[in-house]
Amino acid sequence: MKAAVLCVGTELLFGQTVNTNATYISHQLQLLGFDVLYHYVVGDNPQRLERLLDVCFEDCDLIITTGGLGPTEDDLTKETIAKYFGDELVYDEESLSRLKKYFVDTNRKMTENNLKQALLPSKSIVFPNSYGTAPGFLLSKDEKYIISLPGPPKEMTKMFDKEVFPYLSKKQNGALFYKIIRTYGIGESALETALLPLIHGQTDPTIATYAKEGECSIRIASKRETLQESESAVDMMIGKVYEIIGDYIYSENDEEYAKVLVDKLISENLTLTSVESCTGGMFASTITDISGASNCFKRGYVTYSNESKIHDVGVDAKLIEKYTAVSEEVARDMAIKGLEKANADICVSVTGIAGPDSWENFSPGTIFVGVAFNPGKRTKDKDIIGGRLCFVQNLDTRRTDRNKNRKYAVLAMIDMVYKTIKIS
Amino acid sequence: MKAAVLCVGTELLFGQTVNTNATYISHQLQLLGFDVLYHYVVGDNPQRLERLLDVCFEDCDLIITTGGLGPTEDDLTKETIAKYFGDELVYDEESLSRLKKYFVDTNRKMTENNLKQALLPSKSIVFPNSYGTAPGFLLSKDEKYIISLPGPPKEMTKMFDKEVFPYLSKKQNGALFYKIIRTYGIGESALETALLPLIHGQTDPTIATYAKEGECSIRIASKRETLQESESAVDMMIGKVYEIIGDYIYSENDEEYAKVLVDKLISENLTLTSVESCTGGMFASTITDISGASNCFKRGYVTYSNESKIHDVGVDAKLIEKYTAVSEEVARDMAIKGLEKANADICVSVTGIAGPDSWENFSPGTIFVGVAFNPGKRTKDKDIIGGRLCFVQNLDTRRTDRNKNRKYAVLAMIDMVYKTIKIS
Repeated sequence: MKAAVLCVGTELLFGQTVNTNATYISHQLQLLGFDVLYHYVVGDNPQRLERLLDVCFEDCDLIITTGGLGPTEDDLTKETIAKYFGDELVYDEESLSRLKKYFVDTNRKMTENNLKQALLPSKSIVFPNSYGTAPGFLLSKDEKYIISLPGPPKEMTKMFDKEVFPYLSKKQNGALFYKIIRTYGIGESALETALLPLIHGQTDPTIATYAKEGECSIRIASKRETLQESESAVDMMIGKVYEIIGDYIYSENDEEYAKVLVDKLISENLTLTSVESCTGGMFASTITDISGASNCFKRGYVTYSNESKIHDVGVDAKLIEKYTAVSEEVARDMAIKGLEKANADICVSVTGIAGPDSWENFSPGTIFVGVAFNPGKRTKDKDIIGGRLCFVQNLDTRRTDRNKNRKYAVLAMIDMVYKTIKIS
Repeated sequence: MKAAVLCVGTELLFGQTVNTNATYISHQLQLLGFDVLYHYVVGDNPQRLERLLDVCFEDCDLIITTGGLGPTEDDLTKETIAKYFGDELVYDEESLSRLKKYFVDTNRKMTENNLKQALLPSKSIVFPNSYGTAPGFLLSKDEKYIISLPGPPKEMTKMFDKEVFPYLSKKQNGALFYKIIRTYGIGESALETALLPLIHGQTDPTIATYAKEGECSIRIASKRETLQESESAVDMMIGKVYEIIGDYIYSENDEEYAKVLVDKLISENLTLTSVESCTGGMFASTITDISGASNCFKRGYVTYSNESKIHDVGVDAKLIEKYTAVSEEVARDMAIKGLEKANADICVSVTGIAGPDSWENFSPGTIFVGVAFNPGKRTKDKDIIGGRLCFVQNLDTRRTDRNKNRKYAVLAMIDMVYKTIKIS
C-alpha cells in the first residue's frame, strides 16, 4: 500500500520546529511494509490542505496527518478532512468525558475552546489521547484512508504505537516481526561494513543500520506467513550478527543503555554513585530518569568547582594543584573518593572541557571518565588501587559542541560502568 | 513572494534522516520576508518530482530544492528541472575544474561518475560548493524561480548563506521582523484567550501562540516597507502583550529559561546550588548545559536517599522521620541546609514522587520545590527563616508521567529561583 505523511503546522513552515513527526511515521510505515511516497507540510489553510489531499490520493491510499487538532481557532484539520470525505463533526461523548477528566486530573481549569477537541467526524474511529487533550481519528471511504493524529510529538508517537500501529499491521498481509539491537562503541560506517555480507546476502530478514547520537542501532525485520516464522528468522539472524559484532551489543530489545545498566545493577545488588564535573548532573539525571533507579542509585555529587571536589567529595587538593582538575589523576581520585564518601559499590567520575571554548591548555572534548569499583566478593585483581578496581579513559572527542560532548560523556560513563561490572 | 521547499531524498521517506534542510531554509526565507506555503519530500523519481513542480508553481514563484545533485545514477534532480524549464545540461567549465581540484586537495581518486556533478542547466546561474562536490544552481523562466542545492546539510547551509541569501535579499520588497516571547505559568488556551482581542484586531503584526513542554511562546511578526517600521510595529505590539500577560513573560528573545536565569545570576553576582531528590540531577544538568554556568553554579547534590539528604547536606533526620521525605518541611530544610553546605547565595531543593508509581500515601506528581535565599544586602523581610528568605511550593501536577513530572519540576525550580531574585 502506498502512503503519504501530511503535517499541518505553521511552526514547521516558519522553520521554528524540525519535522520529527514525518520521520517517525515514515519509519514506522516502513516497518509495516508501506511505501511512503511523499511528505507534505502545509499551514492551517483549508484550501491548500484540501488541494494536497487531492494530489496525495492520486498516488496513495493512506494519508497520515499530524497537527491542527488543537483547541485554538486556527486548528482546522478536522473540519477540512470531514468536509473532504463528506462527513460532519459531532461531539464524541467518550472524548468529551475524557477531556473533562483530564483537566480535573491535572488540576487545571478548562477554557471553553477546549471542548472543540471532542468534536470528531461522525463516521470516524476515534483514537484516545492518553498523553494530552486532542484525540486522533481514522476516516475512510472507497478504500482511501486518512488517519489524523495530534501534532505534539510525544502525544503523536504514543498514539501511533498504541492505536495506529496495531490497526495498520492488521491491514498488511503476512506477519511482520522485528527487533532493534543497540550497540555502543562502533561507528555506523564500520558497523555497516562489518555486516555487509549479511546485508547483501538476502531480502528477508532485512538488516538496516541507524546512527543515533553516539551510538548505532540495527533493525532486523522479517515478514513471513506466520509470526512464529518471522520471529525465528529474526532470531536466527541476530545470532549471526552477534558472531560478527557481539562485543558492541548492549541490548536486543531497543532499550536505553541507562535502563540496561540500572537493571544490571539491581540484578547484581550493586549501588552506584557519581561525581560529575563537566556533565554537571546529566549522568545522575539520565540514571534517575529510569523508573526504579532508586534501588541502585542513592546519591550523586555535582562538583563543578575545585572547592566542591575537595570539600564535598574529598578529592586530594594537591592532585588538583599538580595536575589541574582536568586530568587522569583527578578523575581517578574523584572516583575513589566518591566511592568512599557515598559508601557505594561503584562510582563513576567525569572531569573535562565540555566546550564550546577551550580552558587553559585544554581543548573542548578533553574529557576524563573514571570508574572505581569495590570488588568485595569479586576475585580478579588487576587495576586494583587502594583496594579498588579502577579505570580512567580520556574520551578526547575533538568536538566543540557542548551539548554533544556532555551527552557522549554520559554514554561513555554508562558504558564504563557496565563493562566494569561485566568483566569483573 | 510565495515559496516552497522541495527536498529530494529516499532517506527522508524511509524515516532514516530528519529533514533539517526544510527547517533551515524555511527559517531563512522567513527572515527574508518570503511566505513559505509548502514543504514537500519526494524520492528520486522524475515523474513525481515533475508533478510536484506543477502543483508547487500554481501557488508559488520560488521553489528551493535540496538533494539529488550527487554523482550516483539515482540523482536525477538536475535532469528533471532542466527538462521542466526546457533547458539542457552542459558541462560547466569552472565547476569541472573546481571538482578536479577538490579531489586533488583532499587527496582522493576521482571516479568517473563524479564528472556528472559538473553538468548543469545551460541557462543557470551556478553556485559553487565550497564544502563538497556538487554545485548548486538557479534557473528561472517567466518570473518562476528554482534554486537547487545539494542535500548534505553542511554543504547546503554554507551555500545558502554565501550564495542564496544575498541573491534573494535583493529580490524582496518589504522587510520582515519578528520576535518570539517566552512565557511560563500560563497554558496555551488561557494565553490565547487572554490575547484574543489583539489577535483578532489586525493583520500586521501577526500574533501566534505555541505550546511547548510546560511553557508557551508567542510569535509577533511584522512586514512593512522598511526594517525600522517592522521593528517598531513589533515592539509596539510587545508593549500591548506585556500589559495583558506581562507577569508570565521571561524572555523577549526566544531564550531558554535556564539561560535567562544563568544570565540573571551572573549579572547579580549570585551563586546557586541545588539539592535534588526526585529530579535526580536534572536541574543541575539543565543549568550546566548553559555555557558560562560555572560562573554562578559551583556545586549541586543529588540526594536520592534519606541517608544522602542527612549526611551529604545536613537535613534534620527528625524532620524526615516526622513528616517523611516528601513534605514541605523537608523541602524547606533541604534548601536551607544546602545553602549553608555549599556556601551559596541561593539554593533550590526538590523532593517528591516522579512516578509512574505511588509511594506510601503519595500519588505521583506530589512534588515540593523549596528555595532558600541569603538576602544579605537585600532588605525585604517576609518569609525569613533562620535569617534566610524561604519559599516552598507543592506542584501537585497530578501526572503519572515520570519524564514530564521531572521536566516540569525543573522548570518550576528555575521559575522559583528567578522570581525569588526578582522580587527580593
